[in-house]
Amino acid sequence: MIVEMRAGTTVEEIDGVVQRAKSLGLSVQLNLGTSKAVVAILGNNTGSLPTDVFAVLPGVESVTRIMKPYKLASREFKSEDSKVEVGDVAIGGKQIVVMAGPCAVESEEQMMAAAEIVKKAGARVLRGGAFKPRTSPFSFQGLEEEGLKLLARVRKQFAMPVVTEVVDNHEVALVAGSADILQVGARNMQNFTLLTEVGKSQSPVILKRGFACTVTEWLTAADYLLAEGNQRVILCERGIRTFETSTRFSMDISSIPVIKRASHLPVIVDPSHAAGHYSLVPAIARAAIAAGADGLLIEVHPNPKEALVDGLQSLTPSDFVRLMGELRTIARAVGRDI
Amino acid sequence: MIVEMRAGTTVEEIDGVVQRAKSLGLSVQLNLGTSKAVVAILGNNTGSLPTDVFAVLPGVESVTRIMKPYKLASREFKSEDSKVEVGDVAIGGKQIVVMAGPCAVESEEQMMAAAEIVKKAGARVLRGGAFKPRTSPFSFQGLEEEGLKLLARVRKQFAMPVVTEVVDNHEVALVAGSADILQVGARNMQNFTLLTEVGKSQSPVILKRGFACTVTEWLTAADYLLAEGNQRVILCERGIRTFETSTRFSMDISSIPVIKRASHLPVIVDPSHAAGHYSLVPAIARAAIAAGADGLLIEVHPNPKEALVDGLQSLTPSDFVRLMGELRTIARAVGRDI
Amino acid sequence: MIVEMRAGTTVEEIDGVVQRAKSLGLSVQLNLGTSKAVVAILGNNTGSLPTDVFAVLPGVESVTRIMKPYKLASREFKSEDSKVEVGDVAIGGKQIVVMAGPCAVESEEQMMAAAEIVKKAGARVLRGGAFKPRTSPFSFQGLEEEGLKLLARVRKQFAMPVVTEVVDNHEVALVAGSADILQVGARNMQNFTLLTEVGKSQSPVILKRGFACTVTEWLTAADYLLAEGNQRVILCERGIRTFETSTRFSMDISSIPVIKRASHLPVIVDPSHAAGHYSLVPAIARAAIAAGADGLLIEVHPNPKEALVDGLQSLTPSDFVRLMGELRTIARAVGRDI
Amino acid sequence: MIVEMRAGTTVEEIDGVVQRAKSLGLSVQLNLGTSKAVVAILGNNTGSLPTDVFAVLPGVESVTRIMKPYKLASREFKSEDSKVEVGDVAIGGKQIVVMAGPCAVESEEQMMAAAEIVKKAGARVLRGGAFKPRTSPFSFQGLEEEGLKLLARVRKQFAMPVVTEVVDNHEVALVAGSADILQVGARNMQNFTLLTEVGKSQSPVILKRGFACTVTEWLTAADYLLAEGNQRVILCERGIRTFETSTRFSMDISSIPVIKRASHLPVIVDPSHAAGHYSLVPAIARAAIAAGADGLLIEVHPNPKEALVDGLQSLTPSDFVRLMGELRTIARAVGRDI
Repeated sequence: MIVEMRAGTTVEEIDGVVQRAKSLGLSVQLNLGTSKAVVAILGNNTGSLPTDVFAVLPGVESVTRIMKPYKLASREFKSEDSKVEVGDVAIGGKQIVVMAGPCAVESEEQMMAAAEIVKKAGARVLRGGAFKPRTSPFSFQGLEEEGLKLLARVRKQFAMPVVTEVVDNHEVALVAGSADILQVGARNMQNFTLLTEVGKSQSPVILKRGFACTVTEWLTAADYLLAEGNQRVILCERGIRTFETSTRFSMDISSIPVIKRASHLPVIVDPSHAAGHYSLVPAIARAAIAAGADGLLIEVHPNPKEALVDGLQSLTPSDFVRLMGELRTIARAVGRDI
Repeated sequence: MIVEMRAGTTVEEIDGVVQRAKSLGLSVQLNLGTSKAVVAILGNNTGSLPTDVFAVLPGVESVTRIMKPYKLASREFKSEDSKVEVGDVAIGGKQIVVMAGPCAVESEEQMMAAAEIVKKAGARVLRGGAFKPRTSPFSFQGLEEEGLKLLARVRKQFAMPVVTEVVDNHEVALVAGSADILQVGARNMQNFTLLTEVGKSQSPVILKRGFACTVTEWLTAADYLLAEGNQRVILCERGIRTFETSTRFSMDISSIPVIKRASHLPVIVDPSHAAGHYSLVPAIARAAIAAGADGLLIEVHPNPKEALVDGLQSLTPSDFVRLMGELRTIARAVGRDI
Repeated sequence: MIVEMRAGTTVEEIDGVVQRAKSLGLSVQLNLGTSKAVVAILGNNTGSLPTDVFAVLPGVESVTRIMKPYKLASREFKSEDSKVEVGDVAIGGKQIVVMAGPCAVESEEQMMAAAEIVKKAGARVLRGGAFKPRTSPFSFQGLEEEGLKLLARVRKQFAMPVVTEVVDNHEVALVAGSADILQVGARNMQNFTLLTEVGKSQSPVILKRGFACTVTEWLTAADYLLAEGNQRVILCERGIRTFETSTRFSMDISSIPVIKRASHLPVIVDPSHAAGHYSLVPAIARAAIAAGADGLLIEVHPNPKEALVDGLQSLTPSDFVRLMGELRTIARAVGRDI
Repeated sequence: MIVEMRAGTTVEEIDGVVQRAKSLGLSVQLNLGTSKAVVAILGNNTGSLPTDVFAVLPGVESVTRIMKPYKLASREFKSEDSKVEVGDVAIGGKQIVVMAGPCAVESEEQMMAAAEIVKKAGARVLRGGAFKPRTSPFSFQGLEEEGLKLLARVRKQFAMPVVTEVVDNHEVALVAGSADILQVGARNMQNFTLLTEVGKSQSPVILKRGFACTVTEWLTAADYLLAEGNQRVILCERGIRTFETSTRFSMDISSIPVIKRASHLPVIVDPSHAAGHYSLVPAIARAAIAAGADGLLIEVHPNPKEALVDGLQSLTPSDFVRLMGELRTIARAVGRDI
């Protein structure tokens, strides 16, 4: 950390900073310029120290962190790319993995139809939500446990791994019993109680980016999962909240190369929640692959007009088939397969 | 809801919208302009209907919601101001209630000292976190159950109501056993599982605004608490995330008059988390009272230099005493007391 | 426009809205629901009317605009794609146009070297700034008129169209004398005085998106150019300001399909200013082509380490050659050429 | 500046940074930690150097600025508060200065009525726009030169200083001939061509904050005015663009104490443009005074229902009189007068 002292700071104040650093087992180096005094705090663990430890001391103007606050998710901690294996599917390798299906599990008929469509079109993982976090208490909240059972039947029938969201830290084992990949939703990215339990479960997990969280906070949240020994962590970019309202959220396409540089974890993209409108999904999905994403999470519904949740952002079966064709061409153009 | 059809829409497409509205028990009125056809969907329950119900239909260009998505928190539902009573303290009345104390419960000595200081200075409620949601798993996570016991002792000793955060939906009763007011933190504002349990507990609750949530989403989250029959809901504005970095979050001071117009619930302000720096807290606190807030939630630490969490945004005892004096003057200027 | 009246509005208040609409030559249709009265204001020109015209009237709760505020830039006004021709280059057709060169014109040697590099690699237009709007008055402000003369010489030598920024409404003719395409920078997107003059010049123009302007505001700014009879308008997405700091701005990749749906104007992308770091430029550039952009504006410097402005986001010649190869493959994958 | 080297950097790379610093006349200090090498660049002028100067060098991971990019506007440059005198009005002293009047100059009758109302209620400066930057070319653009003449007559009649906006760098002298204070609007905060001319004019100037500009960028823009020797600069906070839509912009109330700490310049607040709705203006205005603002810029219209521009955010004469009473009480509570 770099501690900048105020103009006119005293020797005693500088010494206060030095003493605190030493009491924490850190070493220091002083830069006493003509107009500013700066204290560099050195050591391997400064990334996990809050900046406040020094910022509260008298005479300190500002404290700048140089070590990143995340550790286990960083490429400095592990330089080679991580690959998450789920059955015979590997996320983070040469093959781009498309996960598709309806937003919410509505009925056995709907899920069987969805699974058939997306599998045939080339998706490798089926998605479907049994527990639906909804902004209003008066909206449909999902089929819950009944939905999980239904997911388990569809998964067996189509021999296809399933991803579904978990919202309660006491239901992690329950959900993991019916699903191959647990999803932590954007609104729960900083629900640290839930993260800890999902980490302990050792299940493969998709960690969606909180819609107002920085990439740094996202990787620090991933550290909660990794700290429990769970290595099978997949990041999912799904758009951030900005002032722009022509889309539901603003897809932060740049986060893909940023993550690839900063972290070893695979990253996939959810174009459906970012767009909020089916007509925008294909362009965003193509862009994600071109930017280097390792997979996609796409909403597809057998009949979007009758969907109970988020029908407007769901692709029809025929739109999905067409999109998969486009994605294959883009994947080849960047040296990958789907 | 107002459904705008695309230019060149057909009679069949318009009829599709009309039929869906009728199937949902709603009435419609058609506006067939020369350049645009518009269908108004009328009925008392359109606020809880997702706009997608119509947006997915062929020929629809856009759907605009006129009814608000929240209901129980709205002033249309209840026109007079709600007052939340906790022991002999009432939040939402003429008296402005200051809640103060350290960010985290650290020790009995620290909490006893803090309680004495803030009570003497005029605070009516003591704050202190036993469970601390931290962005990094390597940071101090709070004293947890030990912290709750400690809070209970301090509360008894000083005969002062206590507010503390609850982070796990299965620990609501546990926390409610040691605290008078439950706090739902900003990162959990849309943790609907937690909201439902806190609603069921019937405990007074402070619902902090999610740092990237709109006022409308905040009031809709309050509906989760109110829908369980819990009327003792206090809103707390604590700053939103913007591009500005000179403060930790940007205090959305306008949300206070906006809430007062849209809702009957009391609203307090946390200047400490918004500012991130003690030197900015007094100005924001004064502004909050001038704007019409019903109370404040302020971090005060007996010795901020030694605080384990967020020391930089904590006031010292003497700064807090000085601020309370300023706030009393402002409160009188707007016709209230502290 | 849809005018929603307050609960309990009076007949007189509703009549006030109706009379004002009629006085403006508009027709109305009333929807008197049981809980809300709604007045629909119909007519072709409501898009250019401020909503305040009705919002200020007694009894009005809110006014919602249905017609877009922009007109000439809309696809409803002109349904087929516009193609902007500059010499033998056409922007908005099947061919993707890459414009490249240094951020700032620094010297004849630098510009000649840059032109040779980017032309050979396949760029069709040369970029270079003679007038540089800089956030600090103490930074290098560009070579100004000397830079324009230099641009004119390079353009002649390489028979390559040139794009450069204009910052003063009284220098439009001067700049247009040395450049083939005028650029209106992001910070000037709502400098309406400048837009009007550039519109009058009838020169091809690149209108960069203001970094905090919505797509709707951007297209409305384009109307300033189009309203002067200048049809040769190219939009340029260059990233928006958000809370994320890992990139200089957040590339709003979704704006490309949004623009393609809402407008007939061609849209290109500047990945360099969005990224702020050369290592992120290729991924964003590839994503832009995959999302449907009609071209790119890329910073390339013969020697970024010695660049006077924005060296960190400039590609080296060899990086640019490699990127052009990648872009050609992506362009073919979406059925286009470079 | 603090230059952090990548893990595994070489001695040659570190030397490259050191040599560049020396070539710029700066001194360096090396911190060679076990896991990171850090180079501190020292000198008085590093604030005006772009970070790219070092960031482009091989082996550099990141560059952090410690000196602020602004200089003349900083409190380090001038420690005592600046007071701007306009006739017998002083902005930045003990007295809080209220500037009020219509958004746009519409007619002599309207301006005379407005001046009478606001002067009588206690405003010290009259506002009114002759040149109106409007987002759409089809909206009313102001009375322009005719409006200036009208302002000059009203100013004479009421012996009251006038503030009006200037939008064209070639019209600075023209506008300064009819107005006592020039206003640079939010959309022109980074129109550096205009800033330079306004700086040269030596007229008192209100520099509105760009709605997506940081406090640092705002103070750096003020440096453009100050660098021309114009000391009479007044900052005006008018709300920033965020995701929240219940107000037109989000008033950044915290910027007031932030500015007071960082700069010697007076700062006023425009609650009208931030709110966008008259009913929210009083709360924001009161909060601004409580937070330490030196004045207010408030829209008041003799008849808001007939206003040509922004009627919804304008106060009526009677609302303004009531507000002035409230503001006097708050001003006294913070030890000031109006």
